Amino acid sequence: MSGGLEEALRSAVGAAHVLVDADLRAAYETDWTRRFTGAARCVVRPASTAEVVAVVRACAAAGVPIVVQGGNTGLVGAGVPTGGEVLVSLARLTSVEPVDAVEAQVTVGAGVTLEKLQAHARTAGLDFGVDLAARSSATVGGMIATNAGGIRVLRHGSMRAQVTGLEAVLADGTVLTRLDGLAKDNTGYDLTQLVAGSEGTLAIVTRARLRLVPLLPERAAALVAVAGTEAALELLAAARARLATLSAAEIFYPEGLELVRAYRQLPAPFAEPAGAYVVLECAARTDPTDDILELLSDCAAVEDATVASDRAGLERLWSYREAHTEAISTAGIPTKLDVCVPLGELTALVAELPATVASVAPKARVITFGHLNEGNLHLNVLDAGEHAEDVTDAVLRLVAAHRGTISSEHGVGRAKAPWLSLSRTPEEIAAMRRIKAALDPDGILNPGVLLPA
Amino acid sequence: MSGGLEEALRSAVGAAHVLVDADLRAAYETDWTRRFTGAARCVVRPASTAEVVAVVRACAAAGVPIVVQGGNTGLVGAGVPTGGEVLVSLARLTSVEPVDAVEAQVTVGAGVTLEKLQAHARTAGLDFGVDLAARSSATVGGMIATNAGGIRVLRHGSMRAQVTGLEAVLADGTVLTRLDGLAKDNTGYDLTQLVAGSEGTLAIVTRARLRLVPLLPERAAALVAVAGTEAALELLAAARARLATLSAAEIFYPEGLELVRAYRQLPAPFAEPAGAYVVLECAARTDPTDDILELLSDCAAVEDATVASDRAGLERLWSYREAHTEAISTAGIPTKLDVCVPLGELTALVAELPATVASVAPKARVITFGHLNEGNLHLNVLDAGEHAEDVTDAVLRLVAAHRGTISSEHGVGRAKAPWLSLSRTPEEIAAMRRIKAALDPDGILNPGVLLPA
Ligand SMILES: Cc1cc2nc3c(=O)[nH]c(=O)nc-3n(C[C@H](O)[C@H](O)[C@H](O)COP(=O)(O)OP(=O)(O)OC[C@H]3O[C@@H](n4cnc5c(N)ncnc54)[C@H](O)[C@@H]3O)c2cc1C
Ligand SMILES: Cc1cc2nc3c(=O)[nH]c(=O)nc-3n(C[C@H](O)[C@H](O)[C@H](O)COP(=O)(O)OP(=O)(O)OC[C@H]3O[C@@H](n4cnc5c(N)ncnc54)[C@H](O)[C@@H]3O)c2cc1C
Repeated sequence: MSGGLEEALRSAVGAAHVLVDADLRAAYETDWTRRFTGAARCVVRPASTAEVVAVVRACAAAGVPIVVQGGNTGLVGAGVPTGGEVLVSLARLTSVEPVDAVEAQVTVGAGVTLEKLQAHARTAGLDFGVDLAARSSATVGGMIATNAGGIRVLRHGSMRAQVTGLEAVLADGTVLTRLDGLAKDNTGYDLTQLVAGSEGTLAIVTRARLRLVPLLPERAAALVAVAGTEAALELLAAARARLATLSAAEIFYPEGLELVRAYRQLPAPFAEPAGAYVVLECAARTDPTDDILELLSDCAAVEDATVASDRAGLERLWSYREAHTEAISTAGIPTKLDVCVPLGELTALVAELPATVASVAPKARVITFGHLNEGNLHLNVLDAGEHAEDVTDAVLRLVAAHRGTISSEHGVGRAKAPWLSLSRTPEEIAAMRRIKAALDPDGILNPGVLLPA
Repeated sequence: MSGGLEEALRSAVGAAHVLVDADLRAAYETDWTRRFTGAARCVVRPASTAEVVAVVRACAAAGVPIVVQGGNTGLVGAGVPTGGEVLVSLARLTSVEPVDAVEAQVTVGAGVTLEKLQAHARTAGLDFGVDLAARSSATVGGMIATNAGGIRVLRHGSMRAQVTGLEAVLADGTVLTRLDGLAKDNTGYDLTQLVAGSEGTLAIVTRARLRLVPLLPERAAALVAVAGTEAALELLAAARARLATLSAAEIFYPEGLELVRAYRQLPAPFAEPAGAYVVLECAARTDPTDDILELLSDCAAVEDATVASDRAGLERLWSYREAHTEAISTAGIPTKLDVCVPLGELTALVAELPATVASVAPKARVITFGHLNEGNLHLNVLDAGEHAEDVTDAVLRLVAAHRGTISSEHGVGRAKAPWLSLSRTPEEIAAMRRIKAALDPDGILNPGVLLPA
């Protein structure tokens, strides 16, 4: 590490927060999936916006690229180094302002975890609109940078929809501040929404103003056995039409269920195996159990179902769905694909998938689960061996042929960058490059992420 | 008009659609408020995206700036020329694709009016989420470019929230196309949301993919007399907490009521005059009248109220609010300010307004109405005489002091550009200029709009 930069970083954040030794850096250098890893020049842990500015300026002056990291739960290899970058961790930006109950908003630091944010909102009788299984580690900054989705998009939209403003540091150290959180503000380009979903390539988020939603104390959920994808869509349509309080609609398949059962030692949910499983959840001010039961008894697509509305029952029921990511990760290092197709294409995609994968990786198996309402499937390919890239290529092309996108909620990162042109036109990619060049002309922030090098 | 450009434009769109004569141009050259007017070099009316591209290329090659126009109902002087520009009207881009009922989306041309869009959606049992009084003329393209708000933001959000994708032409003729309308798509920068609200300065919208909402057949509304702004906010809080089907919450004041009554020959709505008037509307699948009546009888802020749920009654009730813009326009050429403050600041702003205006324009009067739920007030200053700019300056500074924005939904346009720095930081404005320069380096599109010259 060149003495000049090291010195500047130490004077920016204090010597204790510049990690140079390999063993101290290690926890930051490999991503959650273990597919992506690289050696950082050093790990820097600023504790304030001013410290982030000083760090960015020092790196820019030295011409050394930065990798931005929040909770390191991202699944596309975008938050870990490839070699030689300064890794800037936002984990210490954990300020939490009091909840503004009148506006139902709150301002928090980028390093605040989703779990902390949820707990904070709930003390004020409110809730946060996005929820996902990585809640104990995923940070507000990372969730904004990836425009995270999760299990409540059906009800409240993606992360993007929760962000009313932010504070962010550009590649030259400029601080953009917009934390008023006004309900409507039409004074020029929406820089907040431009930074949201930009995966750390345009700016480093340091604080965010977030919308909160009503805390709905009564929840009820059903785990439903159906014949397959088509039947699941039929159930979804009925649920959307009749359950005004619907807050989640998730899908998984027998292969995933088996992995989860083994990993978590769970009993079979039903006497008979089924072609697919759907989790429906309603959240309301009054117990929605009866509405769910009525729907289940009327809908022809239902083969079997189990319903829960107490805390323990809900947790058990959800674990069949939520333990998927960890169960898969325990079974191997998956090639993770996260795609979205129009609902009308979902059945065909699921049907064609096995043959497509088998044609390039005969021994591979695909564990599929996802967010049914948005046609968003997480395809986890295990045992692809040396064919992992071929599987990615074949599957993403299949998805594109079904008018789908190569990244529904995880982002493009490094993992999908080579396939960006399957989802964005050359003109769009050129426009993105023009914007990147306008805000980060020297390519300091997350080079190689999102836009193919 | 230089022969070369004229010829290129004629060959692009046909001679009949290049309007050079002053009398043919006139209808396009003055804005709805009559405050802004200028002579266009010519008016060009392309009928397709390809024709828009040809027009833009011709203008870019000649170095002649473009003013983009939709329905010309904008209220900040952004869609009319200042002198010498080619005015590109999108009014002929009126294609309407069939409604996609599964995805609840539709793709339409930029020139489709809101009224046409609403009618089209309703034939499919759906509705469009944004509604505003200029519905017969305002176009989809103009509404996207201004991120229009209106009376349903409370329920469905602004225009921005309805746009799932668009097709747009950049200043060099590049066409960005993104009309898949996928529910979730995290493949890079959100160019759609960057163009939304950019007021024609970054791109010309030619088509849009729009979200539709359920058509709620049963409506009920109340016109409520309250003591003033504080009481109105009390009523709003009660309505938000108790009316799950609330779809609008509007406010106006005695001066506006008088103007509207004279203009539309309407009777006094109540025996006694009140300090302020609130329109609440609910929309649902089943008649929401009882819920409204119950709220009205419980809420201490209500002084008097009248409720309607039949078509004629709703129209009559709404006309007290919706005829404001036209009634004001008939009374003179107003200086229109469109501001938004946090709800906690609204009462103080309304209270301080008269003195602020009187201090710079003693004879002026202010007609105030707006969208209560978002703290969005339309301030219409009449009889300011030569002090119009002083009033604008004084009021916008007052709004900024109350942590508000100088444009809530109409946009910045030419009217507010000099005051942009009251709402955006120098760093934000610099970042906007960098983006403008990246996408329109020669400043062809809407020069002088939004970013101060
Ligand atoms: C078990 C599990 C379940 C998951 N479920 C979901 C799910 O349902 N839906 C979903 O969308 N995702 C899901 N994810 C993925 C992941 O949780 C999200 O992508 C999350 O938003 C990442 O947040 P993070 O703080 O960990 O970011 P990181 O992993 O640290 O970084 C992710 C990206 O954001 C950038 N970044 C991080 N912080 C900042 C910042 N402050 N400013 C600018 N850029 C920044 C990084 O450079 C990188 O590009 C899951 C992950 C796991 C492990
Ligand atoms: C009676 C009345 C009531 C109104 N009520 C409301 C209200 O409640 N809420 C609200 O938000 N507004 C309201 N408005 C303002 C106006 O209707 C909106 O701003 C509307 O969005 C303008 O649409 P338009 O097609 O008329 O655009 P125009 O007036 O033609 O243009 C407006 C802006 O958009 C740009 N533009 C137009 N078309 C395109 C395109 N295809 N591509 C790129 N840029 C384009 C123009 O250059 C200009 O900057 C009202 C206006 C009137 C007259």
